[in-house]
Amino acid sequence: MTSNKLRIGIIGAGRIGKVHSETLAFRLPDAIPLAIADVNLDAASEVAERCHIPRVLRDHADILKDPEVDAVLICSPTETHADLIISAARAGKHIFCEKPIDHSLSKIDLALQAVKQARVKLQIGFNRRFDTNFARVHNAVTSGELGTPHLMHIVSRDPAPPPLPYIRASGGIFLDMTIHDFDMARFLAGSEVESLYASGAVRIDKEIEKAGDLDTAVIVLHFKNGMIGTIDNSRQAVYGYDQRVEILGSKGAIATENRFPNQVTLSTGSSIQRDLPLNFFMDRYAESFESELSAFVQAVLHDKPVPVTGQDGRAATVMALAARKSVELRRPVQLEEVGHSAP
Amino acid sequence: MTSNKLRIGIIGAGRIGKVHSETLAFRLPDAIPLAIADVNLDAASEVAERCHIPRVLRDHADILKDPEVDAVLICSPTETHADLIISAARAGKHIFCEKPIDHSLSKIDLALQAVKQARVKLQIGFNRRFDTNFARVHNAVTSGELGTPHLMHIVSRDPAPPPLPYIRASGGIFLDMTIHDFDMARFLAGSEVESLYASGAVRIDKEIEKAGDLDTAVIVLHFKNGMIGTIDNSRQAVYGYDQRVEILGSKGAIATENRFPNQVTLSTGSSIQRDLPLNFFMDRYAESFESELSAFVQAVLHDKPVPVTGQDGRAATVMALAARKSVELRRPVQLEEVGHSAP
Amino acid sequence: MTSNKLRIGIIGAGRIGKVHSETLAFRLPDAIPLAIADVNLDAASEVAERCHIPRVLRDHADILKDPEVDAVLICSPTETHADLIISAARAGKHIFCEKPIDHSLSKIDLALQAVKQARVKLQIGFNRRFDTNFARVHNAVTSGELGTPHLMHIVSRDPAPPPLPYIRASGGIFLDMTIHDFDMARFLAGSEVESLYASGAVRIDKEIEKAGDLDTAVIVLHFKNGMIGTIDNSRQAVYGYDQRVEILGSKGAIATENRFPNQVTLSTGSSIQRDLPLNFFMDRYAESFESELSAFVQAVLHDKPVPVTGQDGRAATVMALAARKSVELRRPVQLEEVGHSAP
Amino acid sequence: MTSNKLRIGIIGAGRIGKVHSETLAFRLPDAIPLAIADVNLDAASEVAERCHIPRVLRDHADILKDPEVDAVLICSPTETHADLIISAARAGKHIFCEKPIDHSLSKIDLALQAVKQARVKLQIGFNRRFDTNFARVHNAVTSGELGTPHLMHIVSRDPAPPPLPYIRASGGIFLDMTIHDFDMARFLAGSEVESLYASGAVRIDKEIEKAGDLDTAVIVLHFKNGMIGTIDNSRQAVYGYDQRVEILGSKGAIATENRFPNQVTLSTGSSIQRDLPLNFFMDRYAESFESELSAFVQAVLHDKPVPVTGQDGRAATVMALAARKSVELRRPVQLEEVGHSAP
Repeated sequence: MTSNKLRIGIIGAGRIGKVHSETLAFRLPDAIPLAIADVNLDAASEVAERCHIPRVLRDHADILKDPEVDAVLICSPTETHADLIISAARAGKHIFCEKPIDHSLSKIDLALQAVKQARVKLQIGFNRRFDTNFARVHNAVTSGELGTPHLMHIVSRDPAPPPLPYIRASGGIFLDMTIHDFDMARFLAGSEVESLYASGAVRIDKEIEKAGDLDTAVIVLHFKNGMIGTIDNSRQAVYGYDQRVEILGSKGAIATENRFPNQVTLSTGSSIQRDLPLNFFMDRYAESFESELSAFVQAVLHDKPVPVTGQDGRAATVMALAARKSVELRRPVQLEEVGHSAP
Repeated sequence: MTSNKLRIGIIGAGRIGKVHSETLAFRLPDAIPLAIADVNLDAASEVAERCHIPRVLRDHADILKDPEVDAVLICSPTETHADLIISAARAGKHIFCEKPIDHSLSKIDLALQAVKQARVKLQIGFNRRFDTNFARVHNAVTSGELGTPHLMHIVSRDPAPPPLPYIRASGGIFLDMTIHDFDMARFLAGSEVESLYASGAVRIDKEIEKAGDLDTAVIVLHFKNGMIGTIDNSRQAVYGYDQRVEILGSKGAIATENRFPNQVTLSTGSSIQRDLPLNFFMDRYAESFESELSAFVQAVLHDKPVPVTGQDGRAATVMALAARKSVELRRPVQLEEVGHSAP
Repeated sequence: MTSNKLRIGIIGAGRIGKVHSETLAFRLPDAIPLAIADVNLDAASEVAERCHIPRVLRDHADILKDPEVDAVLICSPTETHADLIISAARAGKHIFCEKPIDHSLSKIDLALQAVKQARVKLQIGFNRRFDTNFARVHNAVTSGELGTPHLMHIVSRDPAPPPLPYIRASGGIFLDMTIHDFDMARFLAGSEVESLYASGAVRIDKEIEKAGDLDTAVIVLHFKNGMIGTIDNSRQAVYGYDQRVEILGSKGAIATENRFPNQVTLSTGSSIQRDLPLNFFMDRYAESFESELSAFVQAVLHDKPVPVTGQDGRAATVMALAARKSVELRRPVQLEEVGHSAP
Repeated sequence: MTSNKLRIGIIGAGRIGKVHSETLAFRLPDAIPLAIADVNLDAASEVAERCHIPRVLRDHADILKDPEVDAVLICSPTETHADLIISAARAGKHIFCEKPIDHSLSKIDLALQAVKQARVKLQIGFNRRFDTNFARVHNAVTSGELGTPHLMHIVSRDPAPPPLPYIRASGGIFLDMTIHDFDMARFLAGSEVESLYASGAVRIDKEIEKAGDLDTAVIVLHFKNGMIGTIDNSRQAVYGYDQRVEILGSKGAIATENRFPNQVTLSTGSSIQRDLPLNFFMDRYAESFESELSAFVQAVLHDKPVPVTGQDGRAATVMALAARKSVELRRPVQLEEVGHSAP
């Protein structure tokens, strides 16, 4: 770094690029959002104006060439991630990349290799690890508060299915949605998964079936440390975004509730009720987007390990591919059947 | 006692008399319901058959004369309580009497004097002390779990006002409804009330105003130990029977929730809800009716002090009379303005 | 029936025999506990005295011979159930039998055949169906409140493992403990299970492993109606008896909490806490034991179908056997691989 | 305004001045923090640097003279508020002033008169009205969701007493702490208070008594619309900042819970527990500080009424003075005994 602040270029001015730009501009004193690039120049300009970002570009290559840029945030569509990681690494930029790295393990491995060779840092955007609820659960596991963990149950349900075109391009529920839960499971267990059994169904929309995908799924995880975990996924929880975890250990159990817009209970003549939980992932996980970027900035500035590595990104993808295979073969799948060990 | 079981006569075969009879018959192995009397002989017969009570009478005097009866339960209308206590005491019977003893302090004092002279036991039916929730709060206070208590708040609301004829004969909200809360306040504080300020309104039904009563009330209690308490009463909580207590102390606070028929949460597209709380005092306090009678039976059989004394019954009545006076005079009232000290 | 009350003989005066005797004696006006038999005559006498049961016997055969006995409750050890069902059926007695019928499908089928031939009623003691929480969930499913059900999750954890000798004779965790959850799953789904995948571990006590059993298990259920369910079992939840269910449907979700001895929250300088949930199945399910017997008595008296049939008992056993096989083979198992269709 | 953004000068760079500066700089696109003044110039400079505020001054008079400043935030000590309001009003600046305006009604009235004459806007910093919980309660009242309101209960407890020097200068618990609750009561009831009865004690620290103050208080509010309210105050809730409200109405009741840092429940061998609630008012009310400033900025820019007026500030002070008088006289006090009607 040429200064004690991290100068950052943002690639992609869509929804998540905008959120990260605001975080850099308004919440992280040690970060300077220096440039933003998007093929949609208007979108980039709008974010730049809002966030006082001085350099607005159409071509991300101009960011990579900019010697004053220390690090890049890759907020572009998934299919561009691996190539951008490779280019950024070769340009010597530290990298924060949204999940997933790619749907193809070989492309992921090429990207990780480039990062390794360039000796830059790469952090993957598994933001949920930074949510205060899940961080508290993680803390309960690592602190020994729960004793030896035995069982884990993850509930992860979206309020409503995404549009069909999105689903068709998503790589399927396991790579698109469950991938967060696969990462959460590894993060909370503190152990790798050895094998898994996945089962899925189409319960919500027959069009999802025609698109070759599932909208409802259950996965059993067999961890190397002996724990057993389950993941419960649905594309549609009419009451809102449902994101919970429970862990049972030898000394106790821990469970999270959803987040609500208020802590108000209304008692009427027909029921005792409260308003629906936060319904949009941007609201539900607002804090975590800030915390993950803060961790990235500090890791680069102080040359410390990033909290979510490229290998973490790879491991979650391997699990997603194994889940897909398990559904196809209707049997448990060893992870090594899918992904040779990491490079 | 001539045996190791307590032989009991029940006076009054109405709603509460029936409940107590069933408890004696089916839940308390050390009690024998030996006789039941009611001017409505059919009612008495029905209870007797259901509860295997051998002697069915129209005149309660026959119970008092019965040498095999060790103790009586007075479950008749309030206006008969004081006289029945006096007769029963003179007959040498131990007495369990429903609350309140009477609306008149002088009649109460005559009754208590008779009990004292006869050296029989008298327990008053403040059943709520035996509810597991309130007993747990009491335990937190006496065990020191809360440290020194500072503030108390009692919420006590009925689902709906009783019929107007009942209200007209009730002695008013303080003697009829708040009397339970006055007893609860003394029980939980472990201290007498020195003065109180009461304020009331008619918010629900103007007919209650015409009957000279209130349907909504707030009372501030100044305890001799320095605590301050508030009672919040309403004759109408549309969501059901609302009975809660909070105490703040130097080491912590304790609060009770209502009781529900189930522990089920339903999440729909419009709210997160649960079914209404138990709506009928017989359901809400079912356990406590059994526990209070069990305590009475054991106290008599083993010649131990009863847990709720005649003085407890008197003290709650003094508070009710003070509250009535405070509303009239629109100022705080010292309890000694109302009730000379107990005999 | 020769009268309008059901005269019942109880076979077995152990823990559950005593509970059922008290229910018959004190809570069910339409039932008469007429006889009780146990090889331990003292135990039988003690229960008989407590519950006013006139006939006390050492040999259950004397109950079966008694022409005044309309129905029997089989509360003896599991290995005697099937034979007793057969004998009782041949004697023309209606039968309430504790779960499980037997560990062997062929013995179960013999018993069910005898019942069919004798045209007597047989109800199996899956009491949890009658718990107000699970009954409320069942109601939400059948009433359509949840829309089409998609996912189910059952948590069923004991406070502590039973003694090793018990475990050795238990038939294994699936036949002993999960069998309740298998029945619950069928009951709540309103659909049969087609196949299941089970996975287990020994996490709590290595002696359980030596005994050939598991203490921790996860089962995935594939229902014929397309739902997917998971069961999460542990022999040890240090915080107490943990029995919950969640169902997600197209219109909403429903979830149960555990039952607690009180509804009190204590706020201290270190945490906001409540007392542990009910820790003993007799307390946790007290109401349900009464409700199931009441249902049996009414079904016999009014010649209506019993709410839990012999086929229900058989189906849960088939699931347990399939789970055992799935663990052995490490793959999903079709139920028809284990149990030919019912006779 | 000379532009479509509001240019603001901040007077006072202490804790709350810093919070407001950050809000203006980073969260409110329509506001420009143009100048900041503090006798402690270092403090002002530090905030200015963090928040990109171009003009840093020692003397607030320089802000009032600055023709480019449209509005000021008064974040200086309470005793300066009234004079600053007068000066700012005369300088033609719109004003946001922290609570309370002053402890003296006559000084308040002078300030309000100056504001009236200058025709500038004045908003008082009763931020809690903007908290999502209390705003939701307010909404339930005004929308009719609760029907006619009958009873209100406000719990407002600090985690620990402030330092004694602070207490000595605070004007007493009613003017310093309860003043927020007095405003909340008026806000939620949608009605003025006619009379009140206050009672207080020193339960926590005898030094507070020597300082002539109370640390524990209960106030009964009689509203003009017939509602009755209670406020429950303590300077010390060891479990954290406790801020709740309950309202009972003819159609239902509403209640708020505290805010917690996470939604995690830990079940151990001794209790079911969660972490303590947010313990610092800056965290607890973070959102509300942003919302109140946003409302002020919009009211000035679009010439709309401010949501919290100078009369609101005056009314809460009148209630505090009446509470003090009620404690002294040990009787209910009419508000008009204390404050002649507003100018």
